[in-house]
Amino acid sequence: MSAVYYEGAGTFSVGECVAQPPGPGEVRLEVAYCGVCGTDLHIAHGAMDARVHTPQVIGHEMSGTVADVGAGVEGFRAGDSVVVRPLDTRGETPADRGFSHISRNLKFLGIDAPGALQASWTVPAFTLHALPQGLDLRLGALAEPLAVACHDVRRGEVAPGQTAVVIGGGPIGLLIALVARARAARVLVVEPDATRRALAAELGFAAYDPAGDDVAAAVAETTEGAGADVVFEVSGSAAGILAATQLACLRGRVVVVAIFSEPKPVALFDLFWKELELRGARVYEPEDFEAAIALLADGSLDVERLITAVEPLERVPAVFDELSSGRPAMKILVDCRS
Amino acid sequence: MSAVYYEGAGTFSVGECVAQPPGPGEVRLEVAYCGVCGTDLHIAHGAMDARVHTPQVIGHEMSGTVADVGAGVEGFRAGDSVVVRPLDTRGETPADRGFSHISRNLKFLGIDAPGALQASWTVPAFTLHALPQGLDLRLGALAEPLAVACHDVRRGEVAPGQTAVVIGGGPIGLLIALVARARAARVLVVEPDATRRALAAELGFAAYDPAGDDVAAAVAETTEGAGADVVFEVSGSAAGILAATQLACLRGRVVVVAIFSEPKPVALFDLFWKELELRGARVYEPEDFEAAIALLADGSLDVERLITAVEPLERVPAVFDELSSGRPAMKILVDCRS
Repeated sequence: MSAVYYEGAGTFSVGECVAQPPGPGEVRLEVAYCGVCGTDLHIAHGAMDARVHTPQVIGHEMSGTVADVGAGVEGFRAGDSVVVRPLDTRGETPADRGFSHISRNLKFLGIDAPGALQASWTVPAFTLHALPQGLDLRLGALAEPLAVACHDVRRGEVAPGQTAVVIGGGPIGLLIALVARARAARVLVVEPDATRRALAAELGFAAYDPAGDDVAAAVAETTEGAGADVVFEVSGSAAGILAATQLACLRGRVVVVAIFSEPKPVALFDLFWKELELRGARVYEPEDFEAAIALLADGSLDVERLITAVEPLERVPAVFDELSSGRPAMKILVDCRS
Repeated sequence: MSAVYYEGAGTFSVGECVAQPPGPGEVRLEVAYCGVCGTDLHIAHGAMDARVHTPQVIGHEMSGTVADVGAGVEGFRAGDSVVVRPLDTRGETPADRGFSHISRNLKFLGIDAPGALQASWTVPAFTLHALPQGLDLRLGALAEPLAVACHDVRRGEVAPGQTAVVIGGGPIGLLIALVARARAARVLVVEPDATRRALAAELGFAAYDPAGDDVAAAVAETTEGAGADVVFEVSGSAAGILAATQLACLRGRVVVVAIFSEPKPVALFDLFWKELELRGARVYEPEDFEAAIALLADGSLDVERLITAVEPLERVPAVFDELSSGRPAMKILVDCRS
């Protein structure tokens, strides 16, 4: 049984995974697959060294099987297929106003506490969601990013017949596009990378290059001049957040999904003139995981096409190096089974 | 009968007011009072010369009396006290999605069409709201800015017991503070000018200097660490919009009331981390005028203290010069009766 340890300063090691027997209210899982996320890459670049205590097992986009159940745990038994909603919300206080998922003392499993890039993982039972029996566990590992997308689409209040623009066609952007289309919206994707744009087109989306295409004209044509009901800013770029307010219709919503580490210029005049709403969206709530799992079970989303490769656990240090060196990828899954 | 004409390049003249007989669907008013607004000052500085066709009668914060009623007008008769909601929404199209008040072809009376700084004003009857009999017409002239404040507070969804912070204690900021308090919110005002801050304090608000006071600590203390439910950015300053997201609680609302002519840095990380909503607010809808008039009739708001002076129409060119030279003022009313 192996585990990947982040050692700080952008370095990883592969070592032994020590199985932790589950305490009361805990469950020990055998991890099947764990996806590599942008946040993991951010950690791999050393950008979160002030937050991550090393050595630390990172990773949070997982699927697996229940191995052992601790005292007092109900609803799960050995052999169940599950995913983990990696939020430890036990530090919540009244000042958080009931918003557990973004509460101030939130611990994120895989960043602030051990994560899923290991063969055996012991977690609080309240983080678990059951997967339908027989669901491919490779797809199950997409539940977490898909829950992000479900949360974002819910924050955007996307309604049938509305038009959504997704700025940034990476894994989260395309998952948002797929979920918005599943909610009966018309979806346009804006992405500068030709490979990613081609995948968006293969998935059936009108895909535009912000450098060469007149995105505003395309949105106007799609909406009879009204503008987009919802714009998702997933690129994290200065140009993206400026375009977002430009493309939105009167009283339109702009959902800020990307993490902007520094303040960026926003066209507040657009916000005022069109009475827009700019809404932040972060992680997910339990219902978003349930919605994501229902979409995976339903099988209509074609999310499998987002899986670029499945790599063995031992290759994780090399995979991070390759991704940092520009290896083109949407979603890379790590097979964590020993 | 006199009128004030804006001649362009920051100059005004006082000339004859030619009464326009009301056409079908129109009403001729005798204007009583007209307030001077920040937008009027903006025009007086020549900043809107590309939009304002000269010579133009400006002014839009008025009260008056019905003089003549055109064919087909119902519900109003000579002698009625009224105010005008200065929005000509007849250019609305389906692409405006029903949001007439911010529709793309909106004409603003007093900017895009003749305004109220004249003794006689002829307007479409659909712009009128009746004032209660006997209401002081000086207070009536505050209906328009108070409707702005009612709209802003509605956009902020201020609820009883919540905490609102108003950044910018000018006329609109203080009206927002008064309306939010009337909606049973706790209100803090942030204003750098000592005179304006003193007026806020006289009106009973906790008033803070952003340069010298620890506003974040005051908000934290007021909210037991949670942060403000709603922040109104009325200052139009770079520091104000950065502070707004900082002061808001989890899932808090920031209402952008000020007009930012250029994109300004916004702490999008705050927006993401706390899942904030930044909402633009512009002008008003009919229900905001009705709410404003009800508050004026109720008499509890103490808005009279915002009236700095009442000036005769002939002094308007001098008043604009004085305001541009730093004459301290909250709301100056112009007596338009000849």
